[in-house]
Formats: sequence, C-alpha cells, structure tokens
Amino acid sequence: MEPFRVHILGCGSALPTLRHFSAMQVVELRGKQMMVDCGEGAQIQLRRHHVRFTRLNQVFISHQHGDHCLGLVGMVSSFGLLDRTAPLHIYGPAPLGEWLRRSLQLFCPHLSYELCWHDVDPTQHQVIYEDRSLTVETLPLCHTVPACGFLFREKPTQPHIRPEMLRFYDIPLSQVYNIKAGKDMVTSEGEVIPATRLTTPADPPRSYAYCSDTCYQPHLHQLLQGVSTLYHEATYGEDRVGNARKYKHSTALQAASVARDAHVGKLLLGHYSQRYEDETVLLDEARSVFPNTFLTQEMQTIDV
Amino acid sequence: MEPFRVHILGCGSALPTLRHFSAMQVVELRGKQMMVDCGEGAQIQLRRHHVRFTRLNQVFISHQHGDHCLGLVGMVSSFGLLDRTAPLHIYGPAPLGEWLRRSLQLFCPHLSYELCWHDVDPTQHQVIYEDRSLTVETLPLCHTVPACGFLFREKPTQPHIRPEMLRFYDIPLSQVYNIKAGKDMVTSEGEVIPATRLTTPADPPRSYAYCSDTCYQPHLHQLLQGVSTLYHEATYGEDRVGNARKYKHSTALQAASVARDAHVGKLLLGHYSQRYEDETVLLDEARSVFPNTFLTQEMQTIDV
Repeated sequence: MEPFRVHILGCGSALPTLRHFSAMQVVELRGKQMMVDCGEGAQIQLRRHHVRFTRLNQVFISHQHGDHCLGLVGMVSSFGLLDRTAPLHIYGPAPLGEWLRRSLQLFCPHLSYELCWHDVDPTQHQVIYEDRSLTVETLPLCHTVPACGFLFREKPTQPHIRPEMLRFYDIPLSQVYNIKAGKDMVTSEGEVIPATRLTTPADPPRSYAYCSDTCYQPHLHQLLQGVSTLYHEATYGEDRVGNARKYKHSTALQAASVARDAHVGKLLLGHYSQRYEDETVLLDEARSVFPNTFLTQEMQTIDV
Repeated sequence: MEPFRVHILGCGSALPTLRHFSAMQVVELRGKQMMVDCGEGAQIQLRRHHVRFTRLNQVFISHQHGDHCLGLVGMVSSFGLLDRTAPLHIYGPAPLGEWLRRSLQLFCPHLSYELCWHDVDPTQHQVIYEDRSLTVETLPLCHTVPACGFLFREKPTQPHIRPEMLRFYDIPLSQVYNIKAGKDMVTSEGEVIPATRLTTPADPPRSYAYCSDTCYQPHLHQLLQGVSTLYHEATYGEDRVGNARKYKHSTALQAASVARDAHVGKLLLGHYSQRYEDETVLLDEARSVFPNTFLTQEMQTIDV
C-alpha cells in the first residue's frame, strides 16, 4: 500500500511555546506532499522534517488567524530564493489571499515561480482540489472567523493482481492493465476467467480529515463518517469548557465525541492551549469516549 | 558596571536553516531590553533566551527584507494575547509600518496595548531614540533596499564615590548626589575639598553598533569611531566577493576593514550565508585584518 502519512510540524495553539510550534502539517500520499496550515516557522519545520521543498505544491489554509498562516510569507519567499520554478497553489480565505499578495509585493516582488491563490469559501462543503490520487473537500467549521477543515480522500485504487493465477491460466503480463480494470480474460482453450478470480480486492480508500479551529459541532460527524484518521483540535480539557465555548474552540472530550459519532478509525488531538504543561489529561478525557485516540507531537509522522 | 549586553537570537541570512534563525537581537542595558530586527520565529527565540516580554518596549528594524522583520506580526499578536498593556514602540522604514498596520487589521484588530510606529529615514544619520540611559542613532547603510544600522550609545555615567575619602574628611552621605555632580565640598574646618578628590572617574560610556545589511562602505568607519562593540554583517567569505558586490552584502574581510578603520573594541560577525556549513573561514579572514573578531551564534549573550 502506498504510504498515506501526516507529518506534524506544529500542534500548538495561538501562543507558540518552546514545546509547540503553531498549527502546520504536511499530508503525504503517493509522493505528493500537501501542506495544511502554515504557522510561523513553517520553513524551519519543513527542513526539520526533511520535506523537500520542491515536492510541496499545494497549501491549504483553514482560516486567517496568525497561528495558522504567519509562516506563508517566509516560506513563499524562501522558495523563490531557492529558484523554484513549479507553481505553488495556495487555498484559503479571500482576505488572506489579499494580504499575501500585498506582503509579497513588499518582501519579494519578483518571485521566480507562479503563486496561484485559490479563494476558498469556508461555509461550503465542496471538493476544492482533485488529482489522480485524491480529492480534497472543505469541511465548514465554526470559529470566531470563517474557518473550514479539509478532508483528504484517496481515490479508489485498483485490485491487486494474483501472479500465481496469471501463471496458472497462462495469461500474459501484457493483460495486467485490463485485468485490473475488471476485464475478464479468455484462455487459449477458450475458457472465460472472471477478472475477480485473477485479483484480490483493492485496498479500501483511506481518508484524512483535519478539523481546526472549531467549537464543538454536534453535526460535523455527518461529513466525517468512516474517515480513517481524524485530526480534531482539542485546545482545552473539561476544566476549561467555558473557555472552549467563549473562544469557539473544542475540548478533547468534544473532539472524541465527534470521532465516536463519525466512526472514524483513529483520532489525533492537537492545537493544545499553552496552559497544559502535560497534555495527558486531554488524552485521558478523550479516550474515555473514544479509546483509539492519540496525542500529536512535533516531529511525528503518522500513518493515516 | 551595569550590564550592557547583546543577546543573539538569530544570525542567519535570507534563508533560515536548522543552524541559524534570521536576523534578530536583543540589546540590554540597565534592565531595558530593546530588540534589533525581528526575523521569523522571534517570539520563540525570545522565549528561548528568557527575555521577559514585558521588559521589551522598543524594536528597531533595519530594513524591509523579510528575514529582518517577518517575526513582527506573530510577536505583536502574542503580546496582545498575553494582555500586555504597556505601549510597544517600533522604529522602521515607512512601507513596513504600513504593512504591519494592515497585517494587524487582519490578524488582531483589537490589540490590548498601543502599538506606536515610528518612521525611520534610513538615509539620515540622526538620533531616533533617547532615554536616561542611552541614545540610539541611525547609521545609513547601502543595500538593495533602503537600510540603516543602529548605534546604541550609553550616556556618560557619574564618577564613583570613594567612601574612604568621605570618612576621612567627615563628609556626610547626604552629599553623595552633589559630589557625583561635581560639586566641591567644604569641611567643618572650612577646608575646600575638590569633588575629584572624593571620586574616581566614571566608567567610559560604552556603545554598540549594529550594521546589517550592507555592502562594504569604506566611509562607514567615520560614524563608528571608537565604538566598544561592532556587529557587522559578513554574509560571505572572499571566495564569494562577487556575490557580496552583486547582492550588496559584505564579506568578513570587509567587515573587519570597517572595524579596523573605526578602531572599535571588538567585532562580531553574523548574517552568514547558508552556503557556509562552518563559518570559521569567515572568522579567519576577518581576524587577518582585525584580530579581536568573534563569530556570533544563537543563544549567545555578549558583553558590549
């Protein structure tokens, strides 16, 4: 199975600390690397995670709070200083695009490559990106400014060839493409062999949802049914459920409720308030509702 | 003697790496802490250096290149999130002030404190800041955009009282203020004691000059005569003197020539190109011209 991974570049919240960088991740599937949010220090964290700058072609920004996007200008500038030529596509809220355009006019008016900004309407649930390997959908969230999450869905893959069956029926390797596409084969003796006998089923498509920042949304699970891995912000514990309500963030328990109701494979927590010296309390609260929960940390790489 | 120190928060150049953050320093004198340049990740580096955010009241920005100022928005925002109340004064080129104003409108429209922007004309040599302890002068530099350095001059301090002489002449302690101010004393027997006999001379005022970014300026030394410590950019070695000319930076040897001609106390090098894995070559070249030269490194604190 091709790797489908998430690199955690930062999992802190508004106030970066010595323990956590601001929000940023890199989603990796079939050699493609896509960034999700881009907090201050992104270019440093990309280097630390050995993400090759030239393999990063898409950036998705959830909302226009500084801790989710202040690394953009530095990263975009540095790509230019390194003579990048491939276009860089950034998806985010319109006001942020305008700010980025003005910032680049000031800081690097002559980029070596094309920067393609794509306005995202965070109130809509829609596919905003598609290629041969995956689609990316927006997930409307509820925060103090318009915000959306992103759902990375791997496209269905083809069934696996059973080489021993090809040999048994003496079917040439040149037919692999057709068999994978579901075409039945006819042997030299005229026997029809169904494609399903020559293959094992394709791996089920995997999916990764990133939901940050948001208050608890009881209906969010409807958009997340069965996703393989859900990253959901868990800024606070139950001790600060009032803060969560006030600042439109979630508690770990609320994140776990979404995971449980969506029947996801596993839940990743992040966006921790700097108030928690040790996030184990968040993990324990979440696991009481959804056992297959994990804390994220910088420098982690997680299989979806 | 009151400490007069420089904390090196970052000494890399345009491309931050895992070895060096972008340009940023904190100058500390008599409990005051002033920032010079503010590269990406400034708020992280301030924490790492245990600089108390509330003691930082002035920021001086040399020019509007991203590696010297991209940490501003994050730092200013975080100060707000921490409910700062004291005004923060930032001195820098006018276009940067406009950009910062717009950025804050987007990212934190409701700051808890007053942000006071002061336009600096980098083409002028003038005092732009003064308090009881020091003055800050601009030093016109020559770079691809308007740029200036900053010269921090400690104000003359008062002479030191010789307690044994006060006892000898039976002069009351209540006169210390007058003696330090140079007033001669008269003993109960009518003898006039010159203030100079009751004191030892004040420490010579110290000074710190920050010059980055700039091409080699043969006349710069005239503004730097006798400064205690000079930080001068040394982006390249002599192997890349052509790059220095092309991008309007300096070589280590050129930095040392300025230091030698200005008769400074010591020279600090920084703003290293990421091309140098080991900056010893820069140090060696500089020392061939000005022996009292040192490399700066992140996490260093240097006495001026």
